[in-house]
Amino acid sequence: MTSALFDLHAPHIEPSSMTAFAGNGLERRSENRDENCVEEALSKQGSHILAFSGRNLVLKHDRQVLDPLFAPYELAELKPEFDDAILLGYYKNGEPRLAVPVRAPAEDIEKHYKIADGRTLYRDQLISEELLGEFAQGAALIAWNFDNRFCGRCGKPMEMKIGGYKRVCSGCEHMIFPRTDPVVIMLVVDEERDLCLLGRGAHFAPGMYSCLAGFVEPGETIENAVRRETREESAIKVGRVRYHASQPWPMPHTMMIGCFGEALSRDIKRDEAELEDCRWFTRQEMADMLDNSGANGSSPPPKGAIAHRLMRDWLEWGA
Amino acid sequence: MTSALFDLHAPHIEPSSMTAFAGNGLERRSENRDENCVEEALSKQGSHILAFSGRNLVLKHDRQVLDPLFAPYELAELKPEFDDAILLGYYKNGEPRLAVPVRAPAEDIEKHYKIADGRTLYRDQLISEELLGEFAQGAALIAWNFDNRFCGRCGKPMEMKIGGYKRVCSGCEHMIFPRTDPVVIMLVVDEERDLCLLGRGAHFAPGMYSCLAGFVEPGETIENAVRRETREESAIKVGRVRYHASQPWPMPHTMMIGCFGEALSRDIKRDEAELEDCRWFTRQEMADMLDNSGANGSSPPPKGAIAHRLMRDWLEWGA
Repeated sequence: MTSALFDLHAPHIEPSSMTAFAGNGLERRSENRDENCVEEALSKQGSHILAFSGRNLVLKHDRQVLDPLFAPYELAELKPEFDDAILLGYYKNGEPRLAVPVRAPAEDIEKHYKIADGRTLYRDQLISEELLGEFAQGAALIAWNFDNRFCGRCGKPMEMKIGGYKRVCSGCEHMIFPRTDPVVIMLVVDEERDLCLLGRGAHFAPGMYSCLAGFVEPGETIENAVRRETREESAIKVGRVRYHASQPWPMPHTMMIGCFGEALSRDIKRDEAELEDCRWFTRQEMADMLDNSGANGSSPPPKGAIAHRLMRDWLEWGA
Repeated sequence: MTSALFDLHAPHIEPSSMTAFAGNGLERRSENRDENCVEEALSKQGSHILAFSGRNLVLKHDRQVLDPLFAPYELAELKPEFDDAILLGYYKNGEPRLAVPVRAPAEDIEKHYKIADGRTLYRDQLISEELLGEFAQGAALIAWNFDNRFCGRCGKPMEMKIGGYKRVCSGCEHMIFPRTDPVVIMLVVDEERDLCLLGRGAHFAPGMYSCLAGFVEPGETIENAVRRETREESAIKVGRVRYHASQPWPMPHTMMIGCFGEALSRDIKRDEAELEDCRWFTRQEMADMLDNSGANGSSPPPKGAIAHRLMRDWLEWGA
């Protein structure tokens, strides 16, 4: 059925589903989390665990095959902290999936296992899209629980509740819930001249250009955040804003909100503290960059990055 | 100029701009915040202050007129905590705007002033849209700074930095930044039967129905959060998702992300712990509710609520 409300994308694939870390297919059953859910999940047949060394994932490897799924008994030599275990959800066949921090020193773990951070996991495609999505959920919750061991109001220790989704202060009973940081990332388009705006930070890989981005501020709408960040970083004035896609970005617990922005001005004045360069790209330059990375000296963010999605979809829109 | 990319709304008014708390017009100058910005702002001619008693706003009143803007010297009897002052930004004419917590007891303040919480400010339209937006920014930052006086990692006191937008631990130097909690709120539409799905929580005003809603979980896209929350609360399966509008919701620091969802199933099974009722509404029932609140026994969320916007815009879309 065609629909004025929902026919926004051509082809009809949800752009968010084509970003890295978005493939989590676990059934979370968030409404059923309670004080026993972790213990029950750990004792259930077929439960599997993602093991975290700090914020990084531990992987078993057997010749070429990398496997991040541990059965509970396989964790022993990694020194698992089962008291800090987090229930991620349930696989289609009902098997529980958990995330567990381990405290064996990284150098000991690396004798028999591989340790990888989130960027490496996705850029080098070390695990499937589904597992990347489960990693994103686990990494965010491990980081949040670690960063909130003490109460922000009174300084007393906090206790983990309902499988890692709530913490309660042992002193003043203050309750907190997992944190997700919204960031806007935007491809600003000058439709009249058929150009789009990209910048590069000093910390980028050589030659790489990407979309401008920044945290949503307290008391801001998505659209106002897009306009403010673009103005602050490039002095370009943005009019209309169109939401395009979102992406979990677990470093440590961000949600990227990808938008197109309508450029209303042309003269760039970049924020020199943030950007090393900022300029307009033609459709042809963008196509060269995406299809033949590096040929003209500039390269895009890796496939799977939401900035890559915005750049690719702008090209396809015009085609 | 007509545009395939940006012509999404008819009439061409950004839906986010028609929600309450979205009217903040201050220039934030976020890239220029430093250790002196509050002191400089306070000493500048024409600086004005929003005074917070806990999480509520203090208002001067003179017969009918309510005024929340204090000059620095006017705060004395409220016992202002200038050490915890937050720089909100700058008014069009360059005058700084700040938020300052005050510690005089509420009962003393109320002898000469009015104190109002966020819901009352917006529902009773006590202040302008612009000031509501400034309140949203201030309330979020006041709450976040108050809730993070101690370090979550080590329990030592944290210090406020750069005008209230960063806190640094006096012990371990851990740094934290303001928190904004993304919530999805969705009007789920059955296009074939021309119906939409609304529910009511037990704590709602009598007869009020609204959109389903819930916090975005760690490692989730906006679209997946819409599908999961709808499934958990009503058992209705959602296919495509269309972003419509966002809204700052400063109780204490939420960002509402309003979407339309495409219903793929019909049989409702409500989450009895969350909802007192959940049912399909016809276009006519929705029109009656919005235009003639209460006439048929049900009423919508107040104007300015993003749920009201989604309901009204669904009606207009079909018109």
